Amino acid sequence: MKEHRVGIIMNGVTGRMGKNQHLMRSVAAIIRKGGVRVSDDEIIMPDPVLVGRNENKLKTIAEEAGGLPWSTDCDALLADPKYSIYFDAQTTQRRAEAVKKAVAAGKHIYCEKPTAESSEQAMEIARLAENAGVCNGAVQDKLWLPGLRKLQHLIDKGFFGEILSVRGEFGYWVFEGQYESLQRPSWNYRKADGGGIIVDMLCHWRYVVDNLFGNITSISCLGATHVPRRWDEAGREYYADSDDAAYATFVTEKGIVCQFNSSWCTRVNRDELFEMHVDGTRGSAVCGLRKAKVQSSVSTPRAVWNPDIDDPNDYRNGWMSVPDIESCDNAFKVQWELFLRHVVLGEPYRWTLREAAKGVQLAELGIESWNKRAWLDVPELK
Amino acid sequence: MKEHRVGIIMNGVTGRMGKNQHLMRSVAAIIRKGGVRVSDDEIIMPDPVLVGRNENKLKTIAEEAGGLPWSTDCDALLADPKYSIYFDAQTTQRRAEAVKKAVAAGKHIYCEKPTAESSEQAMEIARLAENAGVCNGAVQDKLWLPGLRKLQHLIDKGFFGEILSVRGEFGYWVFEGQYESLQRPSWNYRKADGGGIIVDMLCHWRYVVDNLFGNITSISCLGATHVPRRWDEAGREYYADSDDAAYATFVTEKGIVCQFNSSWCTRVNRDELFEMHVDGTRGSAVCGLRKAKVQSSVSTPRAVWNPDIDDPNDYRNGWMSVPDIESCDNAFKVQWELFLRHVVLGEPYRWTLREAAKGVQLAELGIESWNKRAWLDVPELK
Amino acid sequence: MKEHRVGIIMNGVTGRMGKNQHLMRSVAAIIRKGGVRVSDDEIIMPDPVLVGRNENKLKTIAEEAGGLPWSTDCDALLADPKYSIYFDAQTTQRRAEAVKKAVAAGKHIYCEKPTAESSEQAMEIARLAENAGVCNGAVQDKLWLPGLRKLQHLIDKGFFGEILSVRGEFGYWVFEGQYESLQRPSWNYRKADGGGIIVDMLCHWRYVVDNLFGNITSISCLGATHVPRRWDEAGREYYADSDDAAYATFVTEKGIVCQFNSSWCTRVNRDELFEMHVDGTRGSAVCGLRKAKVQSSVSTPRAVWNPDIDDPNDYRNGWMSVPDIESCDNAFKVQWELFLRHVVLGEPYRWTLREAAKGVQLAELGIESWNKRAWLDVPELK
Amino acid sequence: MKEHRVGIIMNGVTGRMGKNQHLMRSVAAIIRKGGVRVSDDEIIMPDPVLVGRNENKLKTIAEEAGGLPWSTDCDALLADPKYSIYFDAQTTQRRAEAVKKAVAAGKHIYCEKPTAESSEQAMEIARLAENAGVCNGAVQDKLWLPGLRKLQHLIDKGFFGEILSVRGEFGYWVFEGQYESLQRPSWNYRKADGGGIIVDMLCHWRYVVDNLFGNITSISCLGATHVPRRWDEAGREYYADSDDAAYATFVTEKGIVCQFNSSWCTRVNRDELFEMHVDGTRGSAVCGLRKAKVQSSVSTPRAVWNPDIDDPNDYRNGWMSVPDIESCDNAFKVQWELFLRHVVLGEPYRWTLREAAKGVQLAELGIESWNKRAWLDVPELK
Repeated sequence: MKEHRVGIIMNGVTGRMGKNQHLMRSVAAIIRKGGVRVSDDEIIMPDPVLVGRNENKLKTIAEEAGGLPWSTDCDALLADPKYSIYFDAQTTQRRAEAVKKAVAAGKHIYCEKPTAESSEQAMEIARLAENAGVCNGAVQDKLWLPGLRKLQHLIDKGFFGEILSVRGEFGYWVFEGQYESLQRPSWNYRKADGGGIIVDMLCHWRYVVDNLFGNITSISCLGATHVPRRWDEAGREYYADSDDAAYATFVTEKGIVCQFNSSWCTRVNRDELFEMHVDGTRGSAVCGLRKAKVQSSVSTPRAVWNPDIDDPNDYRNGWMSVPDIESCDNAFKVQWELFLRHVVLGEPYRWTLREAAKGVQLAELGIESWNKRAWLDVPELK
Repeated sequence: MKEHRVGIIMNGVTGRMGKNQHLMRSVAAIIRKGGVRVSDDEIIMPDPVLVGRNENKLKTIAEEAGGLPWSTDCDALLADPKYSIYFDAQTTQRRAEAVKKAVAAGKHIYCEKPTAESSEQAMEIARLAENAGVCNGAVQDKLWLPGLRKLQHLIDKGFFGEILSVRGEFGYWVFEGQYESLQRPSWNYRKADGGGIIVDMLCHWRYVVDNLFGNITSISCLGATHVPRRWDEAGREYYADSDDAAYATFVTEKGIVCQFNSSWCTRVNRDELFEMHVDGTRGSAVCGLRKAKVQSSVSTPRAVWNPDIDDPNDYRNGWMSVPDIESCDNAFKVQWELFLRHVVLGEPYRWTLREAAKGVQLAELGIESWNKRAWLDVPELK
Repeated sequence: MKEHRVGIIMNGVTGRMGKNQHLMRSVAAIIRKGGVRVSDDEIIMPDPVLVGRNENKLKTIAEEAGGLPWSTDCDALLADPKYSIYFDAQTTQRRAEAVKKAVAAGKHIYCEKPTAESSEQAMEIARLAENAGVCNGAVQDKLWLPGLRKLQHLIDKGFFGEILSVRGEFGYWVFEGQYESLQRPSWNYRKADGGGIIVDMLCHWRYVVDNLFGNITSISCLGATHVPRRWDEAGREYYADSDDAAYATFVTEKGIVCQFNSSWCTRVNRDELFEMHVDGTRGSAVCGLRKAKVQSSVSTPRAVWNPDIDDPNDYRNGWMSVPDIESCDNAFKVQWELFLRHVVLGEPYRWTLREAAKGVQLAELGIESWNKRAWLDVPELK
Repeated sequence: MKEHRVGIIMNGVTGRMGKNQHLMRSVAAIIRKGGVRVSDDEIIMPDPVLVGRNENKLKTIAEEAGGLPWSTDCDALLADPKYSIYFDAQTTQRRAEAVKKAVAAGKHIYCEKPTAESSEQAMEIARLAENAGVCNGAVQDKLWLPGLRKLQHLIDKGFFGEILSVRGEFGYWVFEGQYESLQRPSWNYRKADGGGIIVDMLCHWRYVVDNLFGNITSISCLGATHVPRRWDEAGREYYADSDDAAYATFVTEKGIVCQFNSSWCTRVNRDELFEMHVDGTRGSAVCGLRKAKVQSSVSTPRAVWNPDIDDPNDYRNGWMSVPDIESCDNAFKVQWELFLRHVVLGEPYRWTLREAAKGVQLAELGIESWNKRAWLDVPELK
């Protein structure tokens, strides 16, 4: 069995996403199952080193992950040829600089989103990586969620005929923190700390829509701070000044209207926390994170407007669930495996830093549209 | 028993709405039950005459309605002092002129919406009626639907705490007409005939939102013609050039964001054809045409974002239906009775031609916003 | 990691409550999980010694608890500075004297309820502890049961509007012992042995009501011995002369009426053995030991009195369950941890011997009210 | 077929109870079905005349009831020997005087409850009727409700063994009238108009308890005005000053404790608006207005107090419903038939004016107990 050992500098694994999704459920999980098998006699085996600033935390996590090496000296590791990939899950503010150094050291780059604080910066590191000729990628995990893969499958099979419009509803009620403990970090609601739902979610909507419905060509977005009074992790009241809801509409190159609401201040009357309702000439679908259901044109009930009586149609019953097409692995792990194959085997990989920059761009345009109270075109990034 | 007889010229009862809602289920129904009882020994009794252009149709309808008088000579009736109310349910194009004549003849005015083809014209007839000192009103039927009355009740009782946002979803799939017969007249899809969903629905959203959530102060609207190929009542293919979907967002004087989608090209995944999802600090509600359900803040489940597993919460089960608080009469009939009391007893009545002009205005602004690709403020009508 | 070792003399752990709740599920459980973690680098670690009169029982229990030290010589332990806390779960008759000795030895005091046989005595030991400046506490476990915490949460969030009244129903059928074995010790039914449901339960109702609905200011109580013929653990018939049911009503400083029935002679037609039905202007709740459900004013069905027909309302279906807001630990353990933090860190702690004396007082007043057949005011304890 | 025609002066049938229960569902219903058949060839046929003060209302009701005679001159009817029974359903204030006149005129007496405004007055008319030797009776309808008959049946069959205690819960939420229309007349909440739940309900509890569980010998009662702000039938706000909840405990001659709560300010978590939970040595029952269910001692689950875990018993499932023992007629009609048989055939009849006076007495004692804050004995009425 030929083993491709790939050294990975994992920076920022003391954070929630870095630890749970990237280390434990992706890289460590790949090691545990014996690497990524790429052929009958070949595997790719990640060889990570954990990097952070808090020694105690690092030590604990390294042990939990099965006794991995760790270090607080990132520069030394960048100089070590053993490591060919630099991964970054630090806070957004620290990311661009760290990535630049890694590119300069000739490392391949993989990182969390948003890849930078501005689209300019995001494009800068994308260009640097491209010019340096290193492999590069950024997280676009939602594409590998079971529900979205089912939706892709429906599109691929031509189920919708022509797709006309998409309604996306994302959100749930994030407790204020006074009586119930928070389900999200309090910095999400403070502008100064990089909070805001537009910054958080429009990155995702960019690659979701681009991949499924064609590139976004224009955007209109209204943000709001619905719940300005919140309590933080320590129970201290604070003023939430970043947007906690966004009402956005996108139009794609195919002319599909995508109306997407995102909110941390809504009580859920859906099956899942995120759902897209897709209408097409031949059929419609409702796709969540994990489930999907469809109604084809031939099953469409004859709805007649008559509010004088209770509607005789049971509309909810007119949808048919889409079966699970294959067992679905963790979305982060799937993307890690694809990136490792890209690095080792040169397989194509399209979820690059350049693509990630588009997400940052859309969030910027969303905020600009909100300020200008107007639709904005989405220019190509150069 | 003292009887107030009120003569009503009903013009346009050969159309669908005029016949079913205004004649059969309202005026004729009031006659059948013995008039509107206004005290132990007083009733108001409508005394209608049916007006139209097609004698045969008129005769048939007059018989169905219990043997009512009819005429094709509207001018003669306007000259007859026996009739104090002029009602108009003709096509929109004919309405303004007819109303002007009736005002000039000193009649009280009641009519269908939209009251005119432009807000200028709508305001003109409103001002004429006001200056003439006649009673005047226009249909705002949705306010008396059971579901909206429940919503009003929830608001009155302070159920929501502070209302943050509203999502309105209206729509269903209107068959193209090639294989299935139409559920709506084909002129709805032709611009030249006054079609378009913005013109049709924004009148309604104006009074619904104004009454429930405060006056609309700004609007952003995107229209679309999703299904351009349709077949008419005679099975002839035609080109549908008016908007069949509208993606609008309103902000009210209270700062409430109302995101309303309207579409004739969507398959229904709701309980009713129109639903509003209202989120407030203390509770949320989903209100349809006839039903309503609530979730209070203390019953709000702890939603946690984790797409790695099926969501353990059964969100749909977390809503409690709002009981019917009293038996609900036909919404059109309720408004007719209020208008008759207004005319006979001088009781206050706020659903006037002026209010109806606001609906026409919002539709105009919706189209303008679509063209200008920008948010527009909603100026006060003078 | 800094460890605060706290020596605890645990007297009376051979009894049911002492062993199960205080030793096994609290102190031993805390040791097993590695102490009480009070910060990232600090823990409190209990260091108990078991005390009793029966060497064999002690030895067995000490082993079960993980090999703890034990002794029958309490006086020697009181003299040992290693132990800073004295805990007492002996029978009520022995408690006051033992606590006095421990206070004299400078120990902090934690004990079971009732803290003494009379309120006078209960206040005496409370005052002694206060004057000696030692930390002191007594069990008020029900406050940390999941159901009561949910109720507290509903109150905190203002769910009820103004609370009007509370109905408490506690009880179940305790078998007479002739055919079925007992579920409670037989001494509970003998006056001479300190039995009686008033003495047993009114201590609890005092702190439950005081904490949730405001301090009790008056009481009316009727006791009864419904089942005078019972059989003890050995199958011997005996005469049960203590009260096995109590019908009490309390009024609190807020004017809330709390009608509480307690009975060992009732068959359960509830979801849980203890339930409180709380009615408020804006909503009502039914809270048990672990569960809670609510009905808000907007969901209140229109009940109409008409016994001629089966009631068309399904009242039970009109309640919505309150979600579990966080995982709930054993109530005794939670209170132990709070007491340990109070002793070591000086954190505030309000469930003191003085509070416990109020419970004893209410039981005394309950019996006095029964004898005098009158309402009694509840004077402040000095 | 021998027909006993019985003339009945029905005074007060323009009120709700008089019209619906006594006239339409009782006397008119008896006429419709061809009288009360008392043997194979004998029937009793009521021959009523309707009396009231409002001619219009009387005329309408007389027609609805099948064309009965009516009059506003009660005195003339009392002088008419054709009528042997005087029935009174006027307001309580008018009743005693009217009954006295009727007794003086030699009529048999049947009337609504409460029979008078004070127990003294109620006893006075009872004595007058007894001395005059006329038949007399007062409504105790609840005794003939299906649920209470099932309970009587359980008692008769010895199901309970010795009955130990009874918990009665009566009540529901009466809307304040601001947003929802009232389900009860607004005078119920005004002291000056004879309102109050103690006056309304304790009459009922007296005969229910006396008949089922033995004569009440002592009472403790606490009243409360929980909701002082209400809106009347015309939508006018008013101050509700009469008691809207009563927390009462009765002890009967058999030593049975009956704890009865009555409230118009409670949300229903029961199957019916009134339920009694009866515990006995051999079994328990929960009886409502129409339904009943039982748990016998052999089916009693072993309840064990352990709030650490969800209770493993499903207590509600441990009750067995009692089948309908025979089809149940309207309770008022049943009592009317018994009274007619008493008058015509001399059959025994124990629901007399004297018994009704006991109900008035209990309400008086309830209010006195509330004022004196003490238990009161219930003296025999002489």
